[in-house]
Amino acid sequence: MLAWKRHAAITGIGETEYSKASGMTQKALNMQAATRAIEDAGLRPRDVDGVIASTSEGGLAAEEFIVNLGIPVLRFSVGLHMGGASGVAGIECAAMAVALGVAKHVLVVSGRNGYSGARISQAKTVRGDQAASPTQLTWLQFEAPFGVIVPMHWYGLVARRHMHLYGTTSRQLGAVAVTMRQHAALNPKAIMQAPITIEDHQQSRMVSDPFHLFDCCIETDGATAILVSSAERAADLKQQPAFILGVAAAYPDAPIGTRPDLTHTGVDKAAPRAFEMADLSPKDIRLAELYDPFTIMPILHLESLGICDPGEGGPFVESGGIGLGGRVPVNTHGGLHSQAHSMSGLNHVAEAVKQLRGVAGPAQVREPDPCVVTGFGGFGAGSVAILGS
Amino acid sequence: MLAWKRHAAITGIGETEYSKASGMTQKALNMQAATRAIEDAGLRPRDVDGVIASTSEGGLAAEEFIVNLGIPVLRFSVGLHMGGASGVAGIECAAMAVALGVAKHVLVVSGRNGYSGARISQAKTVRGDQAASPTQLTWLQFEAPFGVIVPMHWYGLVARRHMHLYGTTSRQLGAVAVTMRQHAALNPKAIMQAPITIEDHQQSRMVSDPFHLFDCCIETDGATAILVSSAERAADLKQQPAFILGVAAAYPDAPIGTRPDLTHTGVDKAAPRAFEMADLSPKDIRLAELYDPFTIMPILHLESLGICDPGEGGPFVESGGIGLGGRVPVNTHGGLHSQAHSMSGLNHVAEAVKQLRGVAGPAQVREPDPCVVTGFGGFGAGSVAILGS
Repeated sequence: MLAWKRHAAITGIGETEYSKASGMTQKALNMQAATRAIEDAGLRPRDVDGVIASTSEGGLAAEEFIVNLGIPVLRFSVGLHMGGASGVAGIECAAMAVALGVAKHVLVVSGRNGYSGARISQAKTVRGDQAASPTQLTWLQFEAPFGVIVPMHWYGLVARRHMHLYGTTSRQLGAVAVTMRQHAALNPKAIMQAPITIEDHQQSRMVSDPFHLFDCCIETDGATAILVSSAERAADLKQQPAFILGVAAAYPDAPIGTRPDLTHTGVDKAAPRAFEMADLSPKDIRLAELYDPFTIMPILHLESLGICDPGEGGPFVESGGIGLGGRVPVNTHGGLHSQAHSMSGLNHVAEAVKQLRGVAGPAQVREPDPCVVTGFGGFGAGSVAILGS
Repeated sequence: MLAWKRHAAITGIGETEYSKASGMTQKALNMQAATRAIEDAGLRPRDVDGVIASTSEGGLAAEEFIVNLGIPVLRFSVGLHMGGASGVAGIECAAMAVALGVAKHVLVVSGRNGYSGARISQAKTVRGDQAASPTQLTWLQFEAPFGVIVPMHWYGLVARRHMHLYGTTSRQLGAVAVTMRQHAALNPKAIMQAPITIEDHQQSRMVSDPFHLFDCCIETDGATAILVSSAERAADLKQQPAFILGVAAAYPDAPIGTRPDLTHTGVDKAAPRAFEMADLSPKDIRLAELYDPFTIMPILHLESLGICDPGEGGPFVESGGIGLGGRVPVNTHGGLHSQAHSMSGLNHVAEAVKQLRGVAGPAQVREPDPCVVTGFGGFGAGSVAILGS
């Protein structure tokens, strides 16, 4: 077994505008983000020889990037089918490829018209012009008949279970929402900037118990791209590299209906492997960009990562632990909650890289290194990356 | 960049019956082949922690393997979208994962009811209950309107181009067909066993110029699975490991309509990388399992690999070079032409492993090591693996 810590680095990031009406095709969004990531690294499209375009929500074929960007030799391309865990899992695959010399520079990209096009909250990813993925087919057959139709239904079960086990409160969920919005107010790319209070959260309408409206993330048009290069090549590129110190992914044990405990997911399995690879402990983490489709998830991931003990996530967020002055600032861009919904989780990765470069603007954390990024989706799949210098 | 030659090995192979009417679901076929591959290695399903199920022709979700086989911790799963190149490209991804310790044992599996279900020759992969892949959508928009509707149409263009450039003849294509059938007659798993002559080939009906009926492979129900393990773990398992000495994949430059030369494909780009990794030359190869949907392809791949010089493939096959007594025996199982159509190319891999183990039966080659396997598909994508001890 080959040791590959620090053999790969993120060398470029690219984002489109995040909006509710891009006015662009999904293809154009993907290509714009990809072009920006390549330019950010100081490279040209012809230097790219790997492409990972998340397929969970109808990604683009490798051939589209060959033709539209002009890639003469594409050596590596895979699809990830892990929903919001696909972005960080794609970073893992890209890092594997560059560490072994399978490719030099791998583009990981995800984008869609998540608001003006098919909206997940309206179950439109499994209707209309897109085919259901095999995962979605399983869910449609075995979960949907029992009322688990859109994500807030099953994330609600997760939240309720956490409340039952540990006494986590709705106000603690609200503390996550308020903090995300505080961070978004410092980020010009964030869609939701108006401050909210815990009382606003408590008074917002109930949409799926225990979730109020302000427990739910937004839905967004846009695209994010990340360029992953070998460590040797990264040294010659334009930006300060964000080294991949540890990375891992894991799938759920079973479909939702037969899972013994909804509060344990792929993130619990991936985290120890990522920390072991990085030779770091959860206590070393200075910054965390945690996948947050609903307010319960940052709380859950703080525990899954070992940053908080089980059940301590709620009190930690309530006491300010995830704010900019806290022990571990979380989602300094505003997260899925207030910046933009998920580009397969890659927008969290982009923010981590900005923080490590020291260019995160008013939300810059003084010592963000090392930082952790989680991805989550596909009904329990999780991915974890630890980035640093 | 980490050197990873011989860090991964094929430790198990599993095949269903190959037939024209399996009477089983695609899921059952996949699970049967997977179970047999795991048993072949002397392992249990719970030991598997990676799954690559080709998605080009509607593969299964990772979750299906978790649930149906009983996999407690799945750490790695990707989809390949390279048609018949997906199998060998999947072997590459699996090898990467085990070499880096991302997973211990990765199952690469592909299966379908390719005859009793959706038949490619009837363009049924893009109709009915399956969605077109993004690659297929490109093809439907830009190639199909010009008459390139089923594979024999565009492979016919490749063959005609090769004939134009090098004087390759229909009788040379026929020599491939006759040899495949000779090999199939020695293989109890092969569907087509009745001997054919060059004259039979010449007199078989023209289906898409320059292809006679006997230039075309069969279509098949079935599934093939390959288990890839790290070299360290392989040493403790039941079978003699088939080490992955070199492996590479590459995509085409452009869609068919704008490609400068149809006789150069991803195999041309992948081959030098695979040989470089293996530290071998094409002249070292003793056995070749070459992707053969149509008779032109083994000829083309012999040249793409460098086993024959450009234009020398036709004379080489005509002079008996690919027979069991030839310089480089090709498709000792009968190939897609006479054993079974493609399980994403994995049935070629299974035959290579049997040959290296010395259990290939009457078609056993005396010195099969090292051997090369090619995959091909997705309108020009290619993959190459060099296996040996």
